[in-house]
Order: sequence, then C-alpha cells, then structure tokens
Amino acid sequence: MSGRAGSDRSILAEEMTSAEFEKRAKAKPLVIVPFGSLEEHGSHLPLCTDAFQAEEVAVRVAEKLGAIVLPTIKYGECRSTRNFPGTISLSSKTVRHLAFDIVSELARNGIDKVMILTGHAGTGHMAALREGALKALEKDKRLKIMVLSDYDIAYGLLGKEFPKADGHGGEIETSRIMNIRPELVRSSRPVGRTRAPEYMLLPNPEKYFPTGIIGDSRRATAAKGKKLDDYIVRELCELVSVNFGIGQSR
Amino acid sequence: MSGRAGSDRSILAEEMTSAEFEKRAKAKPLVIVPFGSLEEHGSHLPLCTDAFQAEEVAVRVAEKLGAIVLPTIKYGECRSTRNFPGTISLSSKTVRHLAFDIVSELARNGIDKVMILTGHAGTGHMAALREGALKALEKDKRLKIMVLSDYDIAYGLLGKEFPKADGHGGEIETSRIMNIRPELVRSSRPVGRTRAPEYMLLPNPEKYFPTGIIGDSRRATAAKGKKLDDYIVRELCELVSVNFGIGQSR
Amino acid sequence: MSGRAGSDRSILAEEMTSAEFEKRAKAKPLVIVPFGSLEEHGSHLPLCTDAFQAEEVAVRVAEKLGAIVLPTIKYGECRSTRNFPGTISLSSKTVRHLAFDIVSELARNGIDKVMILTGHAGTGHMAALREGALKALEKDKRLKIMVLSDYDIAYGLLGKEFPKADGHGGEIETSRIMNIRPELVRSSRPVGRTRAPEYMLLPNPEKYFPTGIIGDSRRATAAKGKKLDDYIVRELCELVSVNFGIGQSR
Amino acid sequence: MSGRAGSDRSILAEEMTSAEFEKRAKAKPLVIVPFGSLEEHGSHLPLCTDAFQAEEVAVRVAEKLGAIVLPTIKYGECRSTRNFPGTISLSSKTVRHLAFDIVSELARNGIDKVMILTGHAGTGHMAALREGALKALEKDKRLKIMVLSDYDIAYGLLGKEFPKADGHGGEIETSRIMNIRPELVRSSRPVGRTRAPEYMLLPNPEKYFPTGIIGDSRRATAAKGKKLDDYIVRELCELVSVNFGIGQSR
Amino acid sequence: MSGRAGSDRSILAEEMTSAEFEKRAKAKPLVIVPFGSLEEHGSHLPLCTDAFQAEEVAVRVAEKLGAIVLPTIKYGECRSTRNFPGTISLSSKTVRHLAFDIVSELARNGIDKVMILTGHAGTGHMAALREGALKALEKDKRLKIMVLSDYDIAYGLLGKEFPKADGHGGEIETSRIMNIRPELVRSSRPVGRTRAPEYMLLPNPEKYFPTGIIGDSRRATAAKGKKLDDYIVRELCELVSVNFGIGQSR
Amino acid sequence: MSGRAGSDRSILAEEMTSAEFEKRAKAKPLVIVPFGSLEEHGSHLPLCTDAFQAEEVAVRVAEKLGAIVLPTIKYGECRSTRNFPGTISLSSKTVRHLAFDIVSELARNGIDKVMILTGHAGTGHMAALREGALKALEKDKRLKIMVLSDYDIAYGLLGKEFPKADGHGGEIETSRIMNIRPELVRSSRPVGRTRAPEYMLLPNPEKYFPTGIIGDSRRATAAKGKKLDDYIVRELCELVSVNFGIGQSR
Repeated sequence: MSGRAGSDRSILAEEMTSAEFEKRAKAKPLVIVPFGSLEEHGSHLPLCTDAFQAEEVAVRVAEKLGAIVLPTIKYGECRSTRNFPGTISLSSKTVRHLAFDIVSELARNGIDKVMILTGHAGTGHMAALREGALKALEKDKRLKIMVLSDYDIAYGLLGKEFPKADGHGGEIETSRIMNIRPELVRSSRPVGRTRAPEYMLLPNPEKYFPTGIIGDSRRATAAKGKKLDDYIVRELCELVSVNFGIGQSR
Repeated sequence: MSGRAGSDRSILAEEMTSAEFEKRAKAKPLVIVPFGSLEEHGSHLPLCTDAFQAEEVAVRVAEKLGAIVLPTIKYGECRSTRNFPGTISLSSKTVRHLAFDIVSELARNGIDKVMILTGHAGTGHMAALREGALKALEKDKRLKIMVLSDYDIAYGLLGKEFPKADGHGGEIETSRIMNIRPELVRSSRPVGRTRAPEYMLLPNPEKYFPTGIIGDSRRATAAKGKKLDDYIVRELCELVSVNFGIGQSR
Repeated sequence: MSGRAGSDRSILAEEMTSAEFEKRAKAKPLVIVPFGSLEEHGSHLPLCTDAFQAEEVAVRVAEKLGAIVLPTIKYGECRSTRNFPGTISLSSKTVRHLAFDIVSELARNGIDKVMILTGHAGTGHMAALREGALKALEKDKRLKIMVLSDYDIAYGLLGKEFPKADGHGGEIETSRIMNIRPELVRSSRPVGRTRAPEYMLLPNPEKYFPTGIIGDSRRATAAKGKKLDDYIVRELCELVSVNFGIGQSR
Repeated sequence: MSGRAGSDRSILAEEMTSAEFEKRAKAKPLVIVPFGSLEEHGSHLPLCTDAFQAEEVAVRVAEKLGAIVLPTIKYGECRSTRNFPGTISLSSKTVRHLAFDIVSELARNGIDKVMILTGHAGTGHMAALREGALKALEKDKRLKIMVLSDYDIAYGLLGKEFPKADGHGGEIETSRIMNIRPELVRSSRPVGRTRAPEYMLLPNPEKYFPTGIIGDSRRATAAKGKKLDDYIVRELCELVSVNFGIGQSR
Repeated sequence: MSGRAGSDRSILAEEMTSAEFEKRAKAKPLVIVPFGSLEEHGSHLPLCTDAFQAEEVAVRVAEKLGAIVLPTIKYGECRSTRNFPGTISLSSKTVRHLAFDIVSELARNGIDKVMILTGHAGTGHMAALREGALKALEKDKRLKIMVLSDYDIAYGLLGKEFPKADGHGGEIETSRIMNIRPELVRSSRPVGRTRAPEYMLLPNPEKYFPTGIIGDSRRATAAKGKKLDDYIVRELCELVSVNFGIGQSR
Repeated sequence: MSGRAGSDRSILAEEMTSAEFEKRAKAKPLVIVPFGSLEEHGSHLPLCTDAFQAEEVAVRVAEKLGAIVLPTIKYGECRSTRNFPGTISLSSKTVRHLAFDIVSELARNGIDKVMILTGHAGTGHMAALREGALKALEKDKRLKIMVLSDYDIAYGLLGKEFPKADGHGGEIETSRIMNIRPELVRSSRPVGRTRAPEYMLLPNPEKYFPTGIIGDSRRATAAKGKKLDDYIVRELCELVSVNFGIGQSR
C-alpha cells in the first residue's frame, strides 16, 4: 500500500490468492474496508490525505487483531470541498452502492464481521456508507457491521489536547500525515476557520473557508501525529474487542 | 502506488495538492483512471492482479506523456469468477456510477482528455465503464474519452507470440505479474482451459474452469512479462497520440 | 393543525387559497416544512410525538417571522425503533424524494428561503432530508435551504439543564409533549438507557433499549416543556435572522 | 386532526402509543391511509381541500367500523393544476414509494387489511398509489388492499343529483368543504369548465380551465355537502363490508 | 405488418430508409406508436390480440392522414391477466421507459406530433405510457402528445350497441379480430363475467374471471368487427383533426 | 410476421391462445426472443433491417427445432447511428428491463430454455440484454439462457468469404435483406468505411462513416444472402443442440 514499506500477504486481501483468502475466511476474521476521498486538503496536504490515514490505521489494527484489509476506496462523497480544484466527489448513490456491494460480497464469502473505516468523515458520505451497509445487513442478518471514521475517535480529543476549532486539514490531520507520509507534506502551513452559517445547505461552501482548511496547521508535528495514530489504533482495537469479541492476536 | 518504488507528485493525483492539480489541469493533460478487480486469479496470482497491471502501465504511460493518474479503483464487476472465494464483485450499476461520477468530476475540473484503463476486461465490466463514461459525455460534449483494457492490446498477440487459448491467469497475465510484483507470484503454476458453452449465461461459470485460470502459467517468465508491458506501454502511447494528439514529453 | 386551537390562514399553506399563496410568495417569505415520524415513543407518548413538536415550534416561529408553514409530513425514516410495534418507517429513498419534490416545487412557486424542520432527528432520516434538498439546490442555485431538527437545539442543553443521557422519549421529549398535547401523555413514566454498541449497524436495535426510551421520563414536567419550547422558538428565530436576514414581524 | 373537534386515541394512530397500536393490530382491524394534495382549488377553496375530505370520511368510517386511521399524507401528484400557484406536486415516483413503504410497514405490524383513501383523484396519482401498494402486495401476498378515492363514489352521482360537468373545485367539492371546514371557504363562487383537448398530454393544462375549477360552485351548500359526506361514508362502509368482511361495530 | 397484405414504405417507419424518414419528418407529420400486449385472451383469441387491433387502426388512420407508424411494441403491463399462461407482462417501469425513450427520440428527429395508441387498455399500463410520455414532454415542451387506447373509443359504445358488461376478450374484441385476423380466431366462443371486488388489488385476479374473458363472445361477428374498426378509425381521425389540426390527406 | 408468407400458430407465440401456449410450455421447448433496432442502415436498407434478419432466422430455427418465437422487439440501443435521422434508440436501461421482464415472465410460465437473438449487435445493446437476462437468472437459477446476435455467427466469415472490413449495412447485411425482404432494398449501393478512432467514446460517431454504412454493398446478392441465412440457421441449430440438448424435430 502507498507509503508503507512492504507488502503483507497475511493482511492485504489484494495480495492474497483465492485459496488463501478462503482459508482465512474460514476463521471468521474481521475484515476492514478503508474508504478515503480525493479532495482538496489545503495548500500543504495531498488530495488523498483521508485515504492515507484510514489505510494506515486499518493495517495497524489488522496487524494487532489478525484482520484482513480490503483495498482502499480512495474516493468519497465530498460536500464542503466539492467546488475546489482537485476534488473528485462521488454521488451519495455511488457510495451507497459501493458499501452495499462490498459488504454483500464479503457475506457471500462467509465473512460476518465487517468494519467500514473511512478517513473522510463528511456526514453525507458516512450516511451513504451506513445506508449501503444496512441494506446488506437486511439481506443477511448474521452480519455484524461497524461503520465509523478514525475522526470519530480523533475528534474526541478536541477541546482537550487539541483546539476545539480544529478540523479539515488542520493541526490533527497535518500531524498525522507528517507521521504517515512526511514526504507529501508541503512547506506551507495554512490557517483557517469557518464561519459557515449553521444548518444551511450551501451552493458555495468553499466561500466560507477560503484557505480550504479549518484549524492551525502551524501547530502540527510528526510527533503529535504519531501519538494520534497510536491512540486511534488503541481505541479501534478496544472497540473491536467490545463489538466483535476479538482480542489482540499479536 | 503498490509495488512501485516511490511516489511521484507530478503523476499521481493522490499525492498532489489542490493547487498543484489545478495548475496541471490548466495545461489540459490526459488523465488516466485505472480500474482493476478483486477476484480469483488461480492458485499462483493475487486477487488484485488486474489492478496491479493497469496501474503499472498507467503510470508508465503517464511518465512518458505527462499525464495524470487518478487512484486505482481496485474493484470491478466480475462474472465468470463471481462464485470463487476472494472475489468481491461490484454490480454493473455501481461500476456505471463510478465511471460517470469520476469522468463528470474531471470535466468539472476542466479536464477534457480521459482514458479509463481497466486491467479487468470482462465484457459486462467494460460495458458498464463505457456506459457510465458515455453518460458523462452526454452532459459535457467537449470531453474526449477513451475506454479500454490493457488486455485489448495484449490479446492482440494471441495466436502470434502466445497461444490462442491463453486467458485469465494464464501465460500472459502470470508473466506480467512476475515482472511487476514478482514477490506476489506463488510457486504453483496451474494450467486450465475453458469449455464453457458459447453465448450461455451461466449460474455456475466456475464449473467450466475448475483451476480458475485459462492457459498455461508454466510458460510464464518475468522476461516475457517485461516485453509485454513495454509493448503495451508503447501501443497505449501510440493510441493516445492518434486519439488525443498528445506526443511524448520525456 | 392537531392540538392547536384554531386555524390561521396567514400561516398554514393548507388553509390558503392559490391566490393567497401566490400573493404571499411574492414577498419572498420563509417557508417551513415540518417533518416528523410515526414511531414508538415509549409507553407514555404517542406515535407522532416528533411531528407534534416540529409542528408546534414551526407555527410559533412562523407567527413571529411571518413565515408560511407547509403541511407536516408525519412519517420519517426510523432506524433504532424500526422493529417496534407502531413504527411505520419510510425508506431513505422516499424521504430523499419527498424533500427534493417539495423544495423543488417551492422554488417553482418563487420561494427562495426554505427551512426543513424535523422533529425526528435520526441520522439516516436527516441525511436523507439534506440529500434531497441539496439536489433541489443543484437545480436552482438561488435557493437558501436550512435543514435541522428542533433536537439539534434542545440537545444543546444536555449536560447543562438536562442529564447528558437524555434522549428518545426521555425527560425533554416528555416535557415538551406535556406542554403541547398534555391529553396524549399516558400515566406511565418509563426510564431507560441504551448500551447499544458504538458505531454498530444492528439488526435488532430494540434489544438495546427495551423500554423504548432513553432517559428518565419521571423528571418531566409541562413547565419544563414550555421553557424548552420557548427556548427552541427563540433559537430558531435567531438562526433565521442570521441565515436568511429575516427579523421578527410581530 | 384539522377541523375536527378533538382527538380520539382509539382511531388515530398518531395518538396511540406503541403498545396500544400493537394491541389493536392483534385484532386485525382495517387500517385507512388518507392521502390528499396541496394544490390549487379555485379562488374559494383552500389548497388542502382534498386532504380535508379524505380525512373526514376516513375518520367517520373508522368510527363506524373500528378501523385505525394513519396520519394523512397531504401531498399528491398533481398534473392538471401543476403550474398554478400554491400547488406542491410530488412526482409519481415519490407517491409510489410512499404507498409501498407505508403498506409494507403495516404488513410488518401484522396488519392485513388496508384502505388507501385519497381525496385527490388524479389518474397519475391514483396509478402511483396502486402501483406502490401492488408492489407491497407482491412482497406479502396475505395483504388485502383497497385503493380508491372518495370521488370514485361522489362522481357516481354526476348526471344524477349533480351536473355531469361538475369536477375539481365545483359544486360537490365546494359543498363538502362547506360542511367540513366552513370557515375555510371564501366568499367568491367561481364557475368554470374545461375544454382541454381529449387524451392530450399538455405542457400547460391550466390554460384550459382559467378559473382553476370545473363546475359551478355557486350551487354549493353545506347541506348538500353533509348529504354527500353521509352518502360516501355509507358507501365506503358497504364496500369494506363486501371486500373485507368487516361489519359496523358501533 | 402481421395480418396485412403488403408493406407500405410511405407509412411504416420500419420499411423507410434513414433519408426517407428524414424527408418525411420535415413535413412535421403525426407519428403513431402502437402498443399491445402478449396476454391471455380467452380460449378463442390469440395472445397478441391487443397489438393486432392497435396496429390495424394505426395503419388505417395513417393512410388517411399521411401519418407515420412506428413498429408496434407487442408487450405491455398486464395486471388482471398476469397469472394466466401465456401472459408476458412488462413492469410499469419498463413501459414508462419505453414511452419516454421513443417519444424523446421522435423529438430528436424533429417530430412534434405523437400519438401513442395502445390496444391494451389496462389502467396501470396506460398510466405508465402517459407518465413516460409526460417526462419526454417536460424535456421538450414543443411536443404535442396524445395517449389513448382504441378501447377508449370502442367502449363508448357500451350500453348502446353493445352490452354494458362487455370487456376483455368479449363481443367487441372478438368481432374485431374476426375482421382483422379471422384465421386466428378459434372455434370456441367463451362467455364470462367478472365479480372482482371493486377497488381491490388482488394477488389472484384470474380467480374472478375463470374463462379469462368478460362478455359474450358468441355474439361476435366479423361484420360487427368491421363496423367497429371503421368507427374507431373515423373517431381517431376526428380527434387528430381537433387535437393536431391535421386533416385527411387522401 | 413481416416479410413472411403466412402465420404459424405452432411457432409464433403471438398467434397462440393462452391454453395452446400452456400446453406447449409443458414440453419445455426453447423460446426465442428476437430483438432488432430501428436505426439508420444506409441509403438502400430499411430502418428495421436488424429486426427482419433476427426474425427470419428465429422462425427458421424454430421450425427446425420445435421452438416458440416471441414477438420481435424492433427497437434497440443504438450508439454509432444514434445521431442519424430515423434512428429511435432505447436507453441501455430500457433494454435491460425488457430482457429482465421477458425472461422472468417466461420463467413464470415454466419455460427454462431461452435464446435472446438480436439482429442488432452493438456492444452496449448486447451488454444490456445480457445484464437484464442475468438478473432474471439470479432470480431463477434453473434458467438456461443464451444471448447472441446472428452477426456473432455471420462475422465469423469475415476475412474468409467476405472482406474483413464488412459491417453495418455492408455486403453481408445487404445480401441478407435482398434474400429476406427484396422489395425493401433500394437501388442505391453505397460504399463506406470507418476510421473511427479506436476505443474512443464519440459525441458524433456519424462523422466517421458519412455514408452510414461499413463495407461495399455493391457486392451484395440475394444468393449470398440466402447462403448466409442458411449458414446462420445451421449454426444456430448446432449451438442449440450443444447448449440445450435439443435436436431437430423436423
């Protein structure tokens, strides 16, 4: 996977053979489906920032728990950044269908524990993932499906270790990419806030955060990123333990 | 990208910033959208075989022609392998929507030259890509869109340098993965043929090629794979030159 | 409207004639579209609890701001209560289409300020309302649309005047119905909490809150309900003032 | 319900609790789903005229037969009035989905006798209700579903007690609203006829009945309205008796 | 066309060349699109009875008025006969799409006068035709579209020259096929009536007319059929004259 | 059927009664569903050229094998000719629904052997037929379905008895219509080739073959057409024998 040293046939479905996948599936492992987005992330971060983060923690969780990681879908439904250059937004419908198809096919393969982990945490995007997965659940009620963003966890630290107003492309996100893909972080350190009117659907959301980010990327460090990633991985493992009854295998 | 030594911010959209993408887009470059599949490929090849090949030649073509490569969609619509373990098939509808959304969003970004390059060459999958792209074309008639598989080119060599009956997971495909991702090719070398009844829609296509491959993978070598990849890259560059009027930049 | 003393042809679209609506529309007023749900609300509250609340505050806001109120849609998409008796859940698709159709038709009538106010605040339901309304916005970019639940406001008081764990059918909701429709509140006062696993899609969410409510309805009073409704009305008026530039007319 | 003196928890689902609905459902009662429209009805009648009528007779039939009445959907698909001010027309698709969802959910609740009673009798609207309900029937063949308009009955009197050419907003409809919601009938008494070309789909149907009504509203009286409503209630009870084998309970 | 002596390149689009169609289209002629059904029609009539009738009168009207006739779609949405052997019913959705596509494509060809003439007069089928055509009209408001069944006209004679209770496969329909395709009328002459409960959606409508017909086919004669067809042709020509301003050309 | 001397109630479903169809269906015969298109075919051939050919060979195969032929659908999805006058192209979606509905209904009738035979061989059209039929197969796995074009067979002769570059409206197609419907072949004999850029989706495909045909129609003769039709019928019978185990009955 991008940014990672090597390959690991025991984790990445894309590198397994059919028979290897079949053998692994028999043990009823957790399967993680990482989602990201291809969207504007300020003047300093790459378009696939969200995918890099989801993939990183997905693989680390999988290493700890003996899970399988499917290939990352590096596209998502983007609303507030949808008019910026470089954003390639899927429609909600497409995201719903992707989630439905992938979870349904995992069920066909005998998998019953699925985590959809999305680095992109837009509410429309996440609603689409949940709706698609829910439809697959209606078809096969034995499925246990978890849908969340690593930012559901990271943003639990807002108002504590990080400023309340941190968000898209801000201190947390910049720190994490400095940890995961340092070579992709440019030298600029933009600062931005949003004053988007509350609860409004906007034809031009970009107008309300002209730097394309929310927060202060100047405060970001790779060390903070590492701490964040470690924290997210621990919390995800804890959630998997509670929700699926799967403990750490290594 | 998987299997490639490093990153290249001048080629991979996922590594560009919004502003960098915007600047590149102004020059009206070709944008390549690689598609693959997550599907059974015999006892020796990984599930994402198709994606690895499409991504490899996409990046090489982009290096030569100054094109941009979008993140690979590593899933496709799989018919003949759809009942094998490890196959995660999308529905045709999902593939159509993906192609439509991505091409439409490229058009919104001012891109007018698009190549959808799919390593998976199933007829249903390719028809879905074409239909989705065609719908985007109807919305924006300035678009020039090319939809093909690298196997449209490779299979031009069947009956010449390669046996007529080579196909899914066979000599050509094995050779190419031996060239691109040698560490992922297992030691087995299956042989298979298909006697699927012609023109029939089958509930159990896997019955007709029990080894999951078509051809003789024992004849595969990395050298043949290299030659094939070079040939495909040359042919793709030639097609781009004829169809889009873009010559080699480096 | 149900539970309200009389009718008011200057507020309720359902009571206006075509010509009266046309005349009002020329002044570019705010139009409020109340949504609710028909779903289980504990042993003490009626199925349409959500609709009664949304309708109540919609009419009161309209009285203050000279807005028009459309007929309440008393059905919504219900996830966590979907297996309880009495719940009649719409699919997300239906809710999307309703929001799209109604907002599009308001635009056809020359209306450019719309508030979708939903008493039911399920995330899937609200995502569907937003997606439908957003599609209408894409068709007519002059629209200004606000989508929110009165519970987006009420729940701002959790952890302050009300316990953190209050929710569906709990202290706040019971108090409000005691204020609005006291004759419909039964004598039981259930208590409940949820221990639903976080982020999980569940085939049987009802299992995790067997009393069908979250919070302590014993703490509810009509006086608290009145205070809550007054507070919500004030906050909504403030939001309308900021978002649409409409001040109080009376 | 609008225009009715009080509430009746034994009839209106919106006022029942979950447990009360469950208990009632066990007796396999008829459930009536009233539909209306929000559409132009001349210079004298309110936009929700159709909903008021359907709701009125639904409740009266329910009182007689021990049926349950769901909340009225006050929107419908409007064709001939779709360009008039104040009309908020749903698409056929939305009406189909509404009918499907609601009937399906009633079936989930163990209900097997459903009457969709629509005050708006447009052919497209009624076809959509039938198609949606039919799809629910295909899913659950135990359902018995009746789909009709109170105007299917009222118009049986055309050419008898009422002029042949009476229709939308005319003598019958005005009389009924004078009976049901007299305070909402304005003082004007428009007269209109239609000369719409037969069988034509028209982009501008409003051109063919400029007063927005068909018939002579001057002939309307509350007494005629009362007689009509009584007649419709009797006929509906008779149809329920024949079709569902349910006799009058009070 | 089936049952007709020869071909006529000036009438049947299927026999025209592209250039001939183009030349004809320039004169803005009426284009007739005949629809039928493949469905049970008693023990004496063929499955495509409806198509034969629509095609016959379409061609005769075209001869008189210089209209173009498109190829007959010999399938329709069948509800009451849908469980009989031999019925091949389309879904409403398919019929809607067919009507939309064909009318849209006629508009692309510069045609502005369209008559959809269906021999099958099921209400769901006709609603689907109208809805599809209406959607095409919304796309191109210059279109004038007429949607009707020849039975809208023939059934105007019920209670006059023919018994009130005549219907599907009865005296009128049998007479017309005896006129148009006598070799296809078998020797049996079934009699049937329906006592289907009014307004009910039925899982088993066939139960209510076990002979599969409504009316008395013993009363049918070819002479009556000829008179009926002549009458329908005259009435259709009159309607075309009124609705489209097209007089008889020969 | 058009162009054929008489009718044959033992072959054509449209001429059978319900009971006759039922009796035939019990013997589990092959059912052939012919598809065509209404599209430009040069200055010499009629718009329904494709339908005439499919229908001709379908009936001849049915005569030999005791199969049933459904009414021809004379419309298809046309891409390269879609901007020519006279082309009435269906959308892919419509073609998918048609194939799904018809095959599903055949399954309901107890039929388990279906051949969709299309005279129009556009890749999008054929993909749509396959996708629709495949969906019917997923619903009823007992179905055996064959989807092909008579041109899948005829084009096996390209580079052999016919020039490699023959195609739409060319030598083969002209010869066949000269055999089947000689009265419909005009006196012009156009010649054309295509230089459409490979793999490109084109907004204006007609630009690349201005005569609307590919090949040399001057070389066409009725004798060649007869030979071709005989050959196709033989090959189809052979395929049916292999795929369905049905031998020649006469």
